[in-house]
Amino acid sequence: MNYSGILDQIHCDLKPWLGKGRVASYIPELANISAERFGMAIVRTTGEVFCTGEADTRFSIQSISKLFACTLAFQLLGDDLWQRVGREPSGTAFNSLVQLEAEQGKPRNPFINAGALVVTDVLCRRFVKAETALVEFIRRLSGERAIGYDAAVAHSELQHAHRNRAMAHFMASFGNLKMPPDLVVDAYTRQCAISMSCVELARAALFLANRGVVPSTGEHIVDASSAKRLSALMLTCGTYDAAGDFVYRVGLPAKSGVGGGIVAVLPGEMAVCVWSPGLDANGNSLAGTLALEWLTTFTEQSIF
Amino acid sequence: MNYSGILDQIHCDLKPWLGKGRVASYIPELANISAERFGMAIVRTTGEVFCTGEADTRFSIQSISKLFACTLAFQLLGDDLWQRVGREPSGTAFNSLVQLEAEQGKPRNPFINAGALVVTDVLCRRFVKAETALVEFIRRLSGERAIGYDAAVAHSELQHAHRNRAMAHFMASFGNLKMPPDLVVDAYTRQCAISMSCVELARAALFLANRGVVPSTGEHIVDASSAKRLSALMLTCGTYDAAGDFVYRVGLPAKSGVGGGIVAVLPGEMAVCVWSPGLDANGNSLAGTLALEWLTTFTEQSIF
Amino acid sequence: MNYSGILDQIHCDLKPWLGKGRVASYIPELANISAERFGMAIVRTTGEVFCTGEADTRFSIQSISKLFACTLAFQLLGDDLWQRVGREPSGTAFNSLVQLEAEQGKPRNPFINAGALVVTDVLCRRFVKAETALVEFIRRLSGERAIGYDAAVAHSELQHAHRNRAMAHFMASFGNLKMPPDLVVDAYTRQCAISMSCVELARAALFLANRGVVPSTGEHIVDASSAKRLSALMLTCGTYDAAGDFVYRVGLPAKSGVGGGIVAVLPGEMAVCVWSPGLDANGNSLAGTLALEWLTTFTEQSIF
Amino acid sequence: MNYSGILDQIHCDLKPWLGKGRVASYIPELANISAERFGMAIVRTTGEVFCTGEADTRFSIQSISKLFACTLAFQLLGDDLWQRVGREPSGTAFNSLVQLEAEQGKPRNPFINAGALVVTDVLCRRFVKAETALVEFIRRLSGERAIGYDAAVAHSELQHAHRNRAMAHFMASFGNLKMPPDLVVDAYTRQCAISMSCVELARAALFLANRGVVPSTGEHIVDASSAKRLSALMLTCGTYDAAGDFVYRVGLPAKSGVGGGIVAVLPGEMAVCVWSPGLDANGNSLAGTLALEWLTTFTEQSIF
Repeated sequence: MNYSGILDQIHCDLKPWLGKGRVASYIPELANISAERFGMAIVRTTGEVFCTGEADTRFSIQSISKLFACTLAFQLLGDDLWQRVGREPSGTAFNSLVQLEAEQGKPRNPFINAGALVVTDVLCRRFVKAETALVEFIRRLSGERAIGYDAAVAHSELQHAHRNRAMAHFMASFGNLKMPPDLVVDAYTRQCAISMSCVELARAALFLANRGVVPSTGEHIVDASSAKRLSALMLTCGTYDAAGDFVYRVGLPAKSGVGGGIVAVLPGEMAVCVWSPGLDANGNSLAGTLALEWLTTFTEQSIF
Repeated sequence: MNYSGILDQIHCDLKPWLGKGRVASYIPELANISAERFGMAIVRTTGEVFCTGEADTRFSIQSISKLFACTLAFQLLGDDLWQRVGREPSGTAFNSLVQLEAEQGKPRNPFINAGALVVTDVLCRRFVKAETALVEFIRRLSGERAIGYDAAVAHSELQHAHRNRAMAHFMASFGNLKMPPDLVVDAYTRQCAISMSCVELARAALFLANRGVVPSTGEHIVDASSAKRLSALMLTCGTYDAAGDFVYRVGLPAKSGVGGGIVAVLPGEMAVCVWSPGLDANGNSLAGTLALEWLTTFTEQSIF
Repeated sequence: MNYSGILDQIHCDLKPWLGKGRVASYIPELANISAERFGMAIVRTTGEVFCTGEADTRFSIQSISKLFACTLAFQLLGDDLWQRVGREPSGTAFNSLVQLEAEQGKPRNPFINAGALVVTDVLCRRFVKAETALVEFIRRLSGERAIGYDAAVAHSELQHAHRNRAMAHFMASFGNLKMPPDLVVDAYTRQCAISMSCVELARAALFLANRGVVPSTGEHIVDASSAKRLSALMLTCGTYDAAGDFVYRVGLPAKSGVGGGIVAVLPGEMAVCVWSPGLDANGNSLAGTLALEWLTTFTEQSIF
Repeated sequence: MNYSGILDQIHCDLKPWLGKGRVASYIPELANISAERFGMAIVRTTGEVFCTGEADTRFSIQSISKLFACTLAFQLLGDDLWQRVGREPSGTAFNSLVQLEAEQGKPRNPFINAGALVVTDVLCRRFVKAETALVEFIRRLSGERAIGYDAAVAHSELQHAHRNRAMAHFMASFGNLKMPPDLVVDAYTRQCAISMSCVELARAALFLANRGVVPSTGEHIVDASSAKRLSALMLTCGTYDAAGDFVYRVGLPAKSGVGGGIVAVLPGEMAVCVWSPGLDANGNSLAGTLALEWLTTFTEQSIF
C-alpha cells in the first residue's frame, strides 16, 4: 500500500476544506490557533512512519487523553472499572448531566467528560499525582521522553471548569467519586492539556492495533483481548455523540479531541493521527474526519 | 371563629398520625428528632395568637428559609429578580439538574434548591454576610431578637452539600451565578440551618397576609400587590413537586421544609405554622399537611 | 364595585394590544379569525351580568371544554378519577409525551391534552356519545339550550389529530385508556369544537364561584369542597405551562383555550370570561391575560 | 479454522445457560416457546455451512427484519434515507418516544422501532404490499423460496401494537410519515412476523460480509462501500441500547430480535446466526450473545 502517496493526495484534496469549521474558542490558547493548520501521520505496526503536513507539531490533545487515562485505569482495575462507568454511547452531549441524574451518577462511558472524571478519580486514588503518572505512561507508549502538559492551557481551562466541577460534585453526591472533587478536576484538566504531535499520538495508540503490545519496545500494555475491547469502546463512544455517523463514514475506532486531533487504529495494521483545529458541529475535527474517511476509501481498508 | 377549639380538635385527631412518615435522615441533627413531635400556631393579622402542642419549640426551618430569602432578594431587585429565576412549578424533584440543563441554567422558581442558590447569590452580592443579613431580616419580621442559625446543623449539612455544589457550579457555567459557588453554597447552607418555633414562623410570614406590612410594627416589607404575588408564588411552587396536590387538599399558599415545618397564609386573616418531623414521599410534613387540610375544612376558610 | 366602568376602562386601555399575538393557525376555521376581536363578560353569583365588546359572539372554546369535561367525569368518579390522572402542573408543553413515558401513561393533570383524553375516555365509557353528554351538561350549566359544537371545526381538527392519536395509543399501551383510542380522540375533538360566547362561558363556570351550585337554577353540580378543589386544580394547571406566571400576574383560577378564550372565577363573587384570538408564546390569549390582570388590579380582588 | 468443532464446543459449554433469561411474553406465540431451545449456523462467503443444534428450525425473526427492510429502503433511496432517520445509537429504550419528541420526529436510527416504521413507510410508498416485497427480497437474499410470515404471530402482535401506533402517529404529526400510520404499522407488524431458520438468516445476511454481493447468485445488493456502511450501522445500533456492551464483548456487527435470534457478520469471512429464546435485560438472546462472544474468543476473529 502506497501510504505516502495516499497521504499526499489527501492533503492536496483537503486544501479547500482547511480553514472550515470552528476552532474551539473557550480559552485563548486554543482560540488563537489557525483553523488552516493540518498534519497527519500513519505508524504501522511494523514501525514504518508516513507523514504529511505538520505531523511533528505538538498540539493540545484534550479529550484524546481520555483514551490513555482509560487504558491506565483499566490496567489497575480491569473489568471492575465498569462497575463505576458504563460502556454505552451516551446519546447526549459530551458534557450533559441529564443522563447522570437518570442513571444515579454512573456515567455512560469513559470517553464523555463525566466518565473521564471517574477514570481520573481512579488514577488520583492510586497515584500521588495522577497527571504525572499519565504523562509518564504516555511517554512509555510513544517512546518520547519530552512529552508534558502545557501549563498555560491547564491554567486557562481551570477558569472554565465550572461544568466539570458540577459533574464531579454531582457524581460525588451519588458516591461515585472517591477523592475530593476539586482535586480530581484539577488532575483531569492537566491531563487534557498534554501536548503531542500526530506522530507521537499515532505511536502512543499503536499498542491497540498490535494486540496490546507496544511494537517498538515489546511492552505488554494489556492482553490481546483487552486491546480489542478498548478498540470496541473507542468505536462506539470515541467521537462524542456523533459516533454512529463517524463509524458509518470512517469505519475505524477513533478518539477525537477539541484541540482538533483524532487518533484512529486499524487492528493488525496501523495507528493513524490527524490534526486540524476547525471543528464540526459535534466537536470533531472537520478536515480530520474527512481525511480519515478518504483514507479508508482510498485504501479500501477499514474494520468492516 | 373558635380557632382555639379547632386547634385542639386537630391536635387530638392527629394522634394516630403522629410518628408516621419518615424523618429526614441525611444528617444526625435532623435524624435524631422524634417523628411524634407536633406543634401548631395561628397568628391573626389582629395580633391574636392561638397554639397547640409544642408551638414554642424551635426546629430547623430548612427550606422555609427560601421564602424569607426570596422576599429579601425581591426587596433588592423587584421584578428584575425574574430575569435570573423563573416563576413556574418545576415538575421535577427539588434537587434535579435536568430542568437546569434544558433551560440554560435558569431555575424554574426560587423555592427549589437551584433557584434558592440564585437568590442567595443575589444576597451574597449585596451583603457582606448573606446569612447574617437574612437572620437580621427574619428578626425584624418576627419581632424576636433571639433567632439565629444552628452551627451544628450547618456544619453537618456542609458535609452533604455535593448536590448543591454541583448545581451552583452548573449555574456558574451558564453565567447565572455571580459570586464564587462555594461561598454561595456556604451561605445557603447556613440559612437553611436557622432555628425558629411555630409562633415565630407564623409571625414572620404574617406580612404576606397583611398586604405586605408587619402588623405589630407597621414596617412595610413589600407593597400590597407584591405581597399577593409572593403568595401566588408560594401557592404554585412552595411545596416541592407536590404543589398541585397540596393546593387541591389545603387550598392555602404555603412553604414547607424538610425539618417538618410548614408555614401558610390566609390573606387578610392569618398566618399559620405547623411542625411535625415525619415527612411524606414528597418531603412535606405528613401530619402537618393533614393539620392544614383539616384547618381549612373545619373553618371553611381557604383562598377558594 | 363599578364593574361596568372597569370593563369599559379595560377595553379602552387594551386597544393598542388588540391584534397583537399569533392566532392559532393549524386549522383554517381558527386561522381566519381576526386577532383584533375582543369580548369580556362578568357574571356575578347574584345574577348580574356586565359586558364589553363582543361578549355575545360565540367562538371555539377548545381547551376550556376540559374544565367542563373534568367536572362531569368528577361527578361520575369522584376522587377515584385521580387514580388515572394526576393533579400536578406538567412542567412541560401541553402536548408533550415525555412526561407520559416517564410516568407510565398517567398524565400529570386533566387540563393537558393527555389528561383530557383520559377524562374523555371516562365519559365515553359512561355515555353512548360523550360529546353529546358534555354539550347537554354545558347547556344545563349555562342555561342556554342553543349551545353545540361546530362540525366544520371538528372536521378540520380531525385532520390534525396525529399528536392526540399518538397520546391516546401511548396511554392505551400502558392500559390507561379503556375505550378504543380512535373513538376517544373523535369525541375529544368534538368537545373542543364547542362554540360559546363570553357570557355563556362565564355563566357555565359560575357554579365554581358559588360553592358548586348553579345560582340561576339551584342545581347542585358538586359539593362546596369539591368546587374549591376543582378551582385549585384550575389555578395550578389551567393555563398550560405558564400557570405559575399566570397566577403571579392574575391571581385567579382560570382555564384558557387556543381559540383565545379564558374563563376565570373569583370564589364567592363572580365568574369572568374574556376572548381575544391573539395568543402569547404559551398559547394563552395575550390581550385576555392582560384584561384579567388589569381586572384584579383595578378591583383589588383576587384570591390572595 | 475448525468451525465445526468450535460450534460443538460452544453448544456443549452453553448447556448450563440454556433456559436462562426470559422469553418474550407479550404474545402467546412467543411466550409458548421453550427458553431451552438453541441453534447456531455459520455460512462462509465460500459457501460452506456449519451448524449445531436446531439450525434449521424456523423462528420469528422479529427485529432482525429491520436489517433487511433497511437494506431494501437503502436500495431505493441511498443516502437520502438519512434525511428521515439518523445513524446514531439511541441511548434510550427501543420503543422510547422521548428522543422522538426532542428531535422533532426524526428517529435516531433504523434499528429502533420508530426508525423501522419510517423505513417501512418508505417501502409502503414504493410497493403495493411492503411486507410482500420484503419477503420476496429475503427469498432472493437467502435463496429459499418457502420463507413467509406467520399470520398468527402477526395477528397477535397487532393486538399489542398500541405503542407502535403511538410512534407512527407521533412521527406523522411531525410530517415524517408519508403513508397512513395504520397502514404502516400493519406492514411493519407483518415484517416482524417473518419466520426463518439460523441457516436461512445467515445466508440472507451474507452479502454484508461479501462486499454487497450474494455469493451464491452473484446478485449485487449494494456496492462494497455501502455494505461496509450498513455493517457499521449494525455495529453501533443493532442490539438495542446495549450496543456498546455487545460490541465490547462480541466485536461483530449484529442485529438481534426479541424472538431470540441474532445475526452477525465477519466481513470477508462469514455470516453467523444464533437462536435461543431466553432474553437478557436488554432484550437480546442471553445464550445467543454468549455463543457469539465465545465464537470470537475461540476463533480469535473479530473486526478488531
